[in-house]
Amino acid sequence: MKAQVSRRVGSRRRVGGTAPDGLGLPSTAQMKQTVIIENVAPVVDGGRYAVKREVGDRLEVSADIFKEGHDALAAFLKYRRADVGEWQETPMHFVDNDRWAGDCVLEENARYVFTIEALPHPFRSWLADLVKRHEAGMDPSSELIEGAALIRDAAARARGEDARRLTEYLAQLARAAPAAAIEVAREPALAALMDAHLDRTDATRCDREFPVIVDRVRARFAAWYEFFPRSGAGDRHGTFTDAEAQLDRAAAMGFDVVYLPPVHPIGRAYRKGRNNALSAEPGEPGSPWAIGGPEGGHDAVHPELGTLADFDRFVASAGRRGLEVALDFAIQCSPDHPYVHEHPEWFFHRPDGTIKYAENPPKKYQDVYPVDFFGEDPSALWREMRRLVEFWIGHGVKTFRVDNPHTKPVRFWEWLIRGVQDAHPEVIFLAEAFTRPKMMKVLAKAGFTQSYTYFTWRNEKTELVDYFNEITKPPVSQYFRGNLWPNTPDILHETLQKGGRPAFIARMVLAATLSSVWGMYSGYELCENEPFAPGSEEYRNSEKYELKTRDWNAPGNIVDWITRMNGIRRAHPALQEYTNPVFYRADDPHVLWYGKMTESRDDIVFVAVNLDPFGEHACSVDVPLGELGLAEDRPYAMHEQFTDAWYEWRGPSGYVALAPPRGPAQIFVLHR
Amino acid sequence: MKAQVSRRVGSRRRVGGTAPDGLGLPSTAQMKQTVIIENVAPVVDGGRYAVKREVGDRLEVSADIFKEGHDALAAFLKYRRADVGEWQETPMHFVDNDRWAGDCVLEENARYVFTIEALPHPFRSWLADLVKRHEAGMDPSSELIEGAALIRDAAARARGEDARRLTEYLAQLARAAPAAAIEVAREPALAALMDAHLDRTDATRCDREFPVIVDRVRARFAAWYEFFPRSGAGDRHGTFTDAEAQLDRAAAMGFDVVYLPPVHPIGRAYRKGRNNALSAEPGEPGSPWAIGGPEGGHDAVHPELGTLADFDRFVASAGRRGLEVALDFAIQCSPDHPYVHEHPEWFFHRPDGTIKYAENPPKKYQDVYPVDFFGEDPSALWREMRRLVEFWIGHGVKTFRVDNPHTKPVRFWEWLIRGVQDAHPEVIFLAEAFTRPKMMKVLAKAGFTQSYTYFTWRNEKTELVDYFNEITKPPVSQYFRGNLWPNTPDILHETLQKGGRPAFIARMVLAATLSSVWGMYSGYELCENEPFAPGSEEYRNSEKYELKTRDWNAPGNIVDWITRMNGIRRAHPALQEYTNPVFYRADDPHVLWYGKMTESRDDIVFVAVNLDPFGEHACSVDVPLGELGLAEDRPYAMHEQFTDAWYEWRGPSGYVALAPPRGPAQIFVLHR
Repeated sequence: MKAQVSRRVGSRRRVGGTAPDGLGLPSTAQMKQTVIIENVAPVVDGGRYAVKREVGDRLEVSADIFKEGHDALAAFLKYRRADVGEWQETPMHFVDNDRWAGDCVLEENARYVFTIEALPHPFRSWLADLVKRHEAGMDPSSELIEGAALIRDAAARARGEDARRLTEYLAQLARAAPAAAIEVAREPALAALMDAHLDRTDATRCDREFPVIVDRVRARFAAWYEFFPRSGAGDRHGTFTDAEAQLDRAAAMGFDVVYLPPVHPIGRAYRKGRNNALSAEPGEPGSPWAIGGPEGGHDAVHPELGTLADFDRFVASAGRRGLEVALDFAIQCSPDHPYVHEHPEWFFHRPDGTIKYAENPPKKYQDVYPVDFFGEDPSALWREMRRLVEFWIGHGVKTFRVDNPHTKPVRFWEWLIRGVQDAHPEVIFLAEAFTRPKMMKVLAKAGFTQSYTYFTWRNEKTELVDYFNEITKPPVSQYFRGNLWPNTPDILHETLQKGGRPAFIARMVLAATLSSVWGMYSGYELCENEPFAPGSEEYRNSEKYELKTRDWNAPGNIVDWITRMNGIRRAHPALQEYTNPVFYRADDPHVLWYGKMTESRDDIVFVAVNLDPFGEHACSVDVPLGELGLAEDRPYAMHEQFTDAWYEWRGPSGYVALAPPRGPAQIFVLHR
Repeated sequence: MKAQVSRRVGSRRRVGGTAPDGLGLPSTAQMKQTVIIENVAPVVDGGRYAVKREVGDRLEVSADIFKEGHDALAAFLKYRRADVGEWQETPMHFVDNDRWAGDCVLEENARYVFTIEALPHPFRSWLADLVKRHEAGMDPSSELIEGAALIRDAAARARGEDARRLTEYLAQLARAAPAAAIEVAREPALAALMDAHLDRTDATRCDREFPVIVDRVRARFAAWYEFFPRSGAGDRHGTFTDAEAQLDRAAAMGFDVVYLPPVHPIGRAYRKGRNNALSAEPGEPGSPWAIGGPEGGHDAVHPELGTLADFDRFVASAGRRGLEVALDFAIQCSPDHPYVHEHPEWFFHRPDGTIKYAENPPKKYQDVYPVDFFGEDPSALWREMRRLVEFWIGHGVKTFRVDNPHTKPVRFWEWLIRGVQDAHPEVIFLAEAFTRPKMMKVLAKAGFTQSYTYFTWRNEKTELVDYFNEITKPPVSQYFRGNLWPNTPDILHETLQKGGRPAFIARMVLAATLSSVWGMYSGYELCENEPFAPGSEEYRNSEKYELKTRDWNAPGNIVDWITRMNGIRRAHPALQEYTNPVFYRADDPHVLWYGKMTESRDDIVFVAVNLDPFGEHACSVDVPLGELGLAEDRPYAMHEQFTDAWYEWRGPSGYVALAPPRGPAQIFVLHR
């Protein structure tokens, strides 16, 4: 038959929980916690992993919240630092269709948890019922007595002024004739007092707490510059002191982070020569990723770079320039690494007892021993890796770029990053995993602050649109921050090899605007693009195997473009957000056109990039007037940032012309 | 740098787990369980609730399964009855992009759980590596020794013939020259033996078990007929014995389940009269939902229907006709119910101590007291409700239609249904919740076998398509089985009121084909469609408040249509599935055209329904030749089931003509 309900009102005494019996009865308390709280957002894999935010963000939480019957409900977002016990709370509000929402500001660089508590709101239920009865001309006298009981209970829970005001309302209700009493009951101030003194005894708490990792803003907004500190001193092996000149350049170009390939002693055995030659000639420096020698391993500094004290000075010097130093963390060893003798059980052995070098048949990497995470007791290895990270944190390093994390157990990273960040929440880990998509994602879920991406291999318009709609939107953007690199020492994409300077500018602008965090490997500003061989993505004369000294003022360099780009990013909050790129129509398959804007719409940036390095493209592009609150017939100014030119546009479309030699990209700031 | 990996091979001894320390290290065993198993399907809310299947179904399970590095993997679907300890398992296979799939047949009417176990497969990894080396011309001798060690370990784990054959392979490998040895290593029979004797020590088990409730097939495929057993005996109050005539009719029309409104004593206080009059005239029977009188409550039979023994005979009599009896379970009481005196604490009280009747202001239901689930200790109430269900199970009832479950706590139902089905897995619960969508869904998740739906209020083409694409497809179809009713004693929709006989036929065909489970309330076959008042969905002279005796042979009845419809359903397995309706294009906004087919495509049914009761509609409709494996140019036969007419169609579209007076619906069985 059709639904009818009634409600109980007034106070009730509590009884203890009922002992479980053969019927599997829940406790008395659980029987009364009947609110359903489900489909909570944002969560990753049901709360198995943390969502990522940055200090100062407003966390917007929503959930389906409802219960049996027709009671009015109240719901609260509860949140706290994971390591500190005190819950804070803020009321949630009803949105639509049993969906509720609330938010809180995440003020500290820390791990948080949130949950939701909800309960029936007897006073608001009673009031709604009372009003319906009144409007139907029914006698409210019995209901008024029930309402008075509710207010009396609330007054007993309240203290001070609130208790006094509630008692006063009680007296008013008692004095008033029914019609007047209903007016008293409807006073918003009374409802607010009743909200403030809800009896939470039977509140339902969501059955789990959902983690949020709140990183510092640098985790989301930064420009990285990678260089080899040993380069740049001519024929000589450069030192940390020499490398200060590179810090000046990086700072002048507007970078925030300088990332150094491994700075540890380099092995001698099977050291690689120029262009990855099987053996090095005397004096060749070897690959910095062949870590460890007689001078030490992962906690030592390569003597030719200087001492640990020199490193400390370098870090301090970078800091004075507003730069932080990111180190490479590559869990692998040269045959000369101290671990090889101290911990042979951390390596893979052949039947003849020798240690296996890295291979990807038919390729051999004789200068590198991979580490075995599956020995009898891996815990010593896990502890030592944790010690290494802590060691460098002790030397001022707050950012680690992790080499090939996808070849080590995901749970190891989850443990390592959680432990490090619990002690040092400011530490940032970038995952260098160029592998299958689900592994890249689970590494981010497991804790990596930032991730390398497929950006380098996304060069066509539709593939860029699809990829960035994937990685900058939920669910992926809840845990994954793509750090975009147009090149690395390992990857010189064909687009750059063939497209030259226009391609270098276009890819740099894409990297710096499609994500809020991007980086480049030095030489990019000189448009270095000679591959090791046709079809190879390796550089010819790769800096991985030799010292390089460059003429930073060489003709055709794009230093000005990069400097301007990083400046535009710093001036425009819209470019400092990760989840806000939106692609709009551009009437040319080679022109990518997208907008980024702040939530408040007080900073609105549009980017046009010509993806074809060989030809000019000009086309009409859409401007989402509705989203921006712009009238169809009113002009607005578009201020192009590289050229400082002002244009007046009007209506829902504009026109862009992108000529590769002059400039394959434009960035417009819209002024109303 | 670019990824390189190596592998450890051969056996290793186990060491005990490492005690946790300040670093939060997992145990040694956990450190080695490094396979990621995520995004498991099918699951409901991450495994919080069970997915629903029926006896004999093949459960298809898939998951993302991968680990660090490049090892070959093996994965197994493990499943068991939830109440019986022994796991069974079946291998999963790689699909694509780290997705794996496997399946098992659910043979028993029981609750199951499944999980997934996965691990690296050293032999297959080794073999892939060996082949690569061989093809690159590298020396395989060290690898052959490693492979022999793997085979030796497997031989030690194996017994009998398998052990003998593995030992023989070892000997062959030892004898062969390297090139010949590689051929031996590649023999599929060897790989199969190695598959069968994998070392599971370090296997990763998915971190939870996912429940599956396997109902009997009736839960999915059934036709229900609702009637009042007190009706049909003329002016006299009918008895269970009288009602046997109704069983004959129900069976003749091809129904499977007869559902009776409450059969318990009816209260006298505030008994409702004809057309819901505030008080009954002497001799009026009252509403069966006003449960309980001096003769007893929910565990008694209304004396005018007969005795409990009469009821038992009625159930047995139904069984002989292939019918089962579904009872109404309405947790509410008349003021005369024994509970009112025995358990006043189960009701809501006014300040003056009187018990509150049900209200939905301004509507009053003085003949019904709702039950309070929030008294001091609700456990006695919960137990008593469980006892009632068990009581009727003891009298042969296996199906309960639950009245207004959304006004009682969801967790109560979850507890009740779980407990009942653990003891009596054959029991089916139908939720009569016409309320907000999320509550309807959570009741299904919490355990209701079937659910009433919004079908009655979905009358236009696009709203039917949208609604059935929602409720018959995942995620909803994983837990929700919509039981479709064109009418109920409470709901006479405007479409029927105005559309008359053509609407009755069309809505019946829709109900019986859009879902595999449907029902109707008696009188529908006579196209009874007089509303209580204009704009009301209540019947005039509703059987809820009076006895009715009908002329079942009245002109215009649609008994033949219904009988034929249920016969077509029984003859066609495609109509017995719930998740398989697919909507295709029909070139008329009033014509709904959809197909249902078995997974093997050996039964293919198309349905055309004219949704306009007032006019003929004819149009072209699409046939998905590709899905059906039909050639574009070959004819196929369409056998119309109501008229037994055969049509030859050819190509990807056909033509249907639906004239309301003759027949607003057609059902075609496609023969190749």
